[in-house]
Amino acid sequence: MWVCLCLAATTSAQSPNDSVVIKRLFTEALNKGKAYEDLRFMCKNIGHRLSGSVAAQKAVEYTQKLMRDYGFDSVYLQYVQVPHWVRGEKEEAKAFLSNGKSVPLRVLALGNSVGTGGNGVKAEVIEVKSIKELDSLGQQAIKGKIVFFNRPMNPTFITTFEAYGDAVDQRSIGASSAAKYGAVAVIVRSMTLARDTFPHTGALRYLDSLPQIPAVAISTNDADVLSIFVKKDKGVQVYLKTNCAMLGEAPSFNVVGEIKGTKFPQEIIVVGGHLDSWDVGEGAHDDGAGCIQSIEALRLFKACGLKPQRTIRCVMFMNEENGLRGGKAYDEETATQKHIAAIESDRGGFTPRGFAIETEQVAHLEKIKSWTNLLAPYGLDKILPGGGGADISYLKKRGCTLIGFVPDSQRYFDYHHAHTDVFEAVNRRELELGAASMASLLWLLSQYGL
Amino acid sequence: MWVCLCLAATTSAQSPNDSVVIKRLFTEALNKGKAYEDLRFMCKNIGHRLSGSVAAQKAVEYTQKLMRDYGFDSVYLQYVQVPHWVRGEKEEAKAFLSNGKSVPLRVLALGNSVGTGGNGVKAEVIEVKSIKELDSLGQQAIKGKIVFFNRPMNPTFITTFEAYGDAVDQRSIGASSAAKYGAVAVIVRSMTLARDTFPHTGALRYLDSLPQIPAVAISTNDADVLSIFVKKDKGVQVYLKTNCAMLGEAPSFNVVGEIKGTKFPQEIIVVGGHLDSWDVGEGAHDDGAGCIQSIEALRLFKACGLKPQRTIRCVMFMNEENGLRGGKAYDEETATQKHIAAIESDRGGFTPRGFAIETEQVAHLEKIKSWTNLLAPYGLDKILPGGGGADISYLKKRGCTLIGFVPDSQRYFDYHHAHTDVFEAVNRRELELGAASMASLLWLLSQYGL
Repeated sequence: MWVCLCLAATTSAQSPNDSVVIKRLFTEALNKGKAYEDLRFMCKNIGHRLSGSVAAQKAVEYTQKLMRDYGFDSVYLQYVQVPHWVRGEKEEAKAFLSNGKSVPLRVLALGNSVGTGGNGVKAEVIEVKSIKELDSLGQQAIKGKIVFFNRPMNPTFITTFEAYGDAVDQRSIGASSAAKYGAVAVIVRSMTLARDTFPHTGALRYLDSLPQIPAVAISTNDADVLSIFVKKDKGVQVYLKTNCAMLGEAPSFNVVGEIKGTKFPQEIIVVGGHLDSWDVGEGAHDDGAGCIQSIEALRLFKACGLKPQRTIRCVMFMNEENGLRGGKAYDEETATQKHIAAIESDRGGFTPRGFAIETEQVAHLEKIKSWTNLLAPYGLDKILPGGGGADISYLKKRGCTLIGFVPDSQRYFDYHHAHTDVFEAVNRRELELGAASMASLLWLLSQYGL
Repeated sequence: MWVCLCLAATTSAQSPNDSVVIKRLFTEALNKGKAYEDLRFMCKNIGHRLSGSVAAQKAVEYTQKLMRDYGFDSVYLQYVQVPHWVRGEKEEAKAFLSNGKSVPLRVLALGNSVGTGGNGVKAEVIEVKSIKELDSLGQQAIKGKIVFFNRPMNPTFITTFEAYGDAVDQRSIGASSAAKYGAVAVIVRSMTLARDTFPHTGALRYLDSLPQIPAVAISTNDADVLSIFVKKDKGVQVYLKTNCAMLGEAPSFNVVGEIKGTKFPQEIIVVGGHLDSWDVGEGAHDDGAGCIQSIEALRLFKACGLKPQRTIRCVMFMNEENGLRGGKAYDEETATQKHIAAIESDRGGFTPRGFAIETEQVAHLEKIKSWTNLLAPYGLDKILPGGGGADISYLKKRGCTLIGFVPDSQRYFDYHHAHTDVFEAVNRRELELGAASMASLLWLLSQYGL
């Protein structure tokens, strides 16, 4: 009889004990959590940390030290070669009206962009709402001009990530799309639903064989102003000067820490975020929060005296923002290891809602969904198919189930890639709830596999 | 056949058209919403608005004008007599240590409290965690002292309102409970989960026949400091000087605006918030947000050209914070009117989650729950039994179903009753989503009744 019960406890989909464990994880996080203070240190003592920068290296050392201090079973670095792009001196942008007046515009060069050169670029502006419109205008209308992409994110999407996905082509391939028709530069309306004065940077991707032209993001407020100028004043020109450059490649690292599984140590469950950030603000929500929550998730296991049956491993991925080299390096370095699941937190440190599950295995999705009764008391009732995350995406082909941590999305793009993404924008409880949410799912995955 | 279909459309629990209507309400709120600008005006041009104050009267006039400008069918005032409590000059508080040093403490008199008189009160401090502990200590330990209630809100409640409910007895009846044993004043740890330097005020209630002693809230940071002093320095005294006073009663008003039902105009559905606020900050989340959302909900009907079958009525209740006179007056004034349901928004302008339903009629709860498929795409999937709201509570005895609008609760008590409850703490989208959520439920209630 005892044997039977014991067997039942290790093979069933959940045990009565799980709710007690999850309660302990949340209690520890909310009563004695370290995430808020650890994030404060990362934001205020290191600050933003673009791939290849000194700050990025400091963030590697800091998170490695945190994992060691928290007593993870093993902590190590994975070499990653990263692109090294720099902004250079502060950018300048001005609109020149036909009455001779000039109006300063708040811009930030897009990541990976080439600079304008010391003399800058001055040209007439043509506003378009989409790449399709650009294509319909063609070379005659575009050649020699600065193309101004000004399609706002659509506020009627309830999930803001959908609005972002719907608009971000302007930023990511707008420059090459305009260069095809002879444009000399592009200005892109910031990818945010906020109406304010802060430009939001982010990566562009130059398409092969097309000229590389400079690209900047403009604040939504200034985009509205520029749009009025362009409509009212046919000859309006803009002067842009950017000093950014791709310097080549630089050495960097992923930071990895793990707690060995007691029963199936060779089966690995990853939890992670990306350590790099854009070079403005403090990378607090994007993705300091995800990194610190991942470390906190493992710390909560230690603090609660929990021993996972499978190995749980937290990974600070380097270079998500402008290359995804860390995700690729992690995949290559661990090619012979068996990965069951990988959780990524890269949607901000807001109130938890659930998890997005990316897998070809319906049974995996169903198994995770079967834990909803354990997770819903903590607000985690949205366990739905969806995207796992950029850094972990390379693991999918290996049969690893990808899991995106999903917090409330309403405020995320107010801060994303902008000066406003600072520690003060993160709420202590919301951050702590997220860490405990990730730890809770890690617990279930580590006990029951998929 | 036509008659049959028509009958079906008016009696069924929902029509395919409802999802289209709800989509339009959200689209209007998110694309062309007025709530954010209207709230900005209320916060920045009027500011906080305690019952009986000049600002409260300005808020009456402002919201009346808004309702008229938005073309509601009728807009009127309901006379309400309110208590008129004033804070007077800035409060002072200092801890005197046995080494002769004094340390300033950040406090705010509790609402309805008596003042200390011009000389202030100086006495030894005794710290307690609960009224039960106070009772166990008794007169010998308490007499002549200042009682310091220092039980924090419990952070492990996932819903912060539960943590508030668990701790607020210290603020509401702590003064009378201590006066019973001869205490000369009380200091209460602020009702917030934030650890910061802002005291949070709020109402106390003096119990009959007990002496009325002065009471203040202390910031959580300063509560922690004072607690260390009390533990390390047995003779620590605190000096308090407060200048507050209850001046008697003053005239004021509820503001009411409505759109007449086309088919059942005599059946009324209320939506409202409270117009008064505490006299610090700007009453942005508490409850400027709820008032403005209620007005916006009716404006959305007008903007979308929707005609409700039942009358929808928005009510700005006066004096929720320290008397609930507006709720009472509304009940008395409308005693002969048939109220189907009343929605209250008084939990902040955060991302919507659902509605809390308070009713004896299981069928009413089930009917509202049956609309979950229409509301869940907008994040409104928590339709659960729960408290409706203070202002509308008087309507329950009349068989009116009470409905509390439930947004995310994590940040609410960071701002509640404090200097930090300002317009900047409200997010535009979150506020707009709330207004559209309330309008959507109003639509379903107005078409189908309960």
